[in-house]
Amino acid sequence: MRKIKLTLAYDGTLYGGWQTQPNAVSIQALVQQSLSTLLRENIQIVGSGRTDAGVHAEGQTAHFTTCSSIDLHRLLLSSNALLPYDIRILEAIEVSHDFHARFSAIGKIYHYRLHLSRIQDPFKRLYSYHVPYPLDLATLKNATRYFVGTHDFTSFANEAHQGSAAKNAVRTLYRLTVVEEEEGVRLEFEGEGFLYKMVRNIVGALLDVSRGKLALEEIPMIFASRDRRQAAMAAPPHGLCLMRVLYSSSR
Amino acid sequence: MRKIKLTLAYDGTLYGGWQTQPNAVSIQALVQQSLSTLLRENIQIVGSGRTDAGVHAEGQTAHFTTCSSIDLHRLLLSSNALLPYDIRILEAIEVSHDFHARFSAIGKIYHYRLHLSRIQDPFKRLYSYHVPYPLDLATLKNATRYFVGTHDFTSFANEAHQGSAAKNAVRTLYRLTVVEEEEGVRLEFEGEGFLYKMVRNIVGALLDVSRGKLALEEIPMIFASRDRRQAAMAAPPHGLCLMRVLYSSSR
Repeated sequence: MRKIKLTLAYDGTLYGGWQTQPNAVSIQALVQQSLSTLLRENIQIVGSGRTDAGVHAEGQTAHFTTCSSIDLHRLLLSSNALLPYDIRILEAIEVSHDFHARFSAIGKIYHYRLHLSRIQDPFKRLYSYHVPYPLDLATLKNATRYFVGTHDFTSFANEAHQGSAAKNAVRTLYRLTVVEEEEGVRLEFEGEGFLYKMVRNIVGALLDVSRGKLALEEIPMIFASRDRRQAAMAAPPHGLCLMRVLYSSSR
Repeated sequence: MRKIKLTLAYDGTLYGGWQTQPNAVSIQALVQQSLSTLLRENIQIVGSGRTDAGVHAEGQTAHFTTCSSIDLHRLLLSSNALLPYDIRILEAIEVSHDFHARFSAIGKIYHYRLHLSRIQDPFKRLYSYHVPYPLDLATLKNATRYFVGTHDFTSFANEAHQGSAAKNAVRTLYRLTVVEEEEGVRLEFEGEGFLYKMVRNIVGALLDVSRGKLALEEIPMIFASRDRRQAAMAAPPHGLCLMRVLYSSSR
């Protein structure tokens, strides 16, 4: 048996998210299908984590085990030929048996794109959140420091299913950088791990602060309340992209 | 009566092209529909020229006349609200009655994007032509000089309809610049006017030259033959974008 690590990019626009589920086409299911067809084996892949419906990825990772001795360059080309163009396997490498796409991960980088313009650019509509009202970028940058570091993020996490809230919601956000782009802003999140909808909920709060709907001083109070209902609405999925899953250098 | 000039951007992926036609949804028809609904008048718009099915625009122009005295800022916002998100009116200004979107134009700028990578990037798939084989960029740049200047472009023009070939196929290409991008190349065409499929046919020839299928010295022979069948296949539409229509400074 060999263990293979995949790196994947996908445009999430048309999908019900990463995870296999009833009533929606998932990216995981399509990748499993292409590998199963190619390797004539029932392949199950394990992702680094889920991405929601509409969320994109430039560097999702997954692993699977196989009896096949297929050359991995051939696997890369042939499985891509079986996949729709909005899903691509970028890399396939053999890893040691103790590697696990989810449990071996030591961090993740997400980008959230805001498109700041009175009129939405048709070419950005699928990959950024259009904000037609003015934002105070200095305040936005100022607000990021409340989120960086180790915090209990309960107020910024949704329950994936009723009653499924993470028991331990303490997470460390290493970095939250605001990068100005042409007609927009890119928010870069780097953390050890993220709770369900955490990035989109933080973006929602940052938007409220930078349009004057929320005062900076209220952010610590929202953290302290440990109540999701105190924080802002989640920003929509299509601005979000999973850029990279980090593993220790040996991976 | 007022004459209004529009500047438009659109993602051509889902459309049968700019021009109103049977059996396909056209961008022109949707813009006319939104303006007619808004102004309660039968509005006919005249574009600077057609773009084919699948071709994009960041700066198409058009004009129309109206009896309405509507504020143009309101027209901009309201007509966009009636249009799908992949078509946006970027600007609406009043122009003098002798302005004509097509006949007043003194030039156009088109960009053609090549995505040079073994594996196609899902986020570039709709807006660039994926070339998975190696290209000789020095040869590509070298070949551009055969096209710049005033030439009879018959060999690089298709007939829009049977027997409709332009009688005079002499055109001036002011500029053909090769700009290297991340994992790709952008070909910038600036000319006084372009024949049907001329940009895509030139790109087809440039690709043949830079992959070694056509010798540089053969290009003048193809021009001299004045025969479309001598030149390469047209590059596909989705790499092409109409960036700007040029008018004399008074517009």
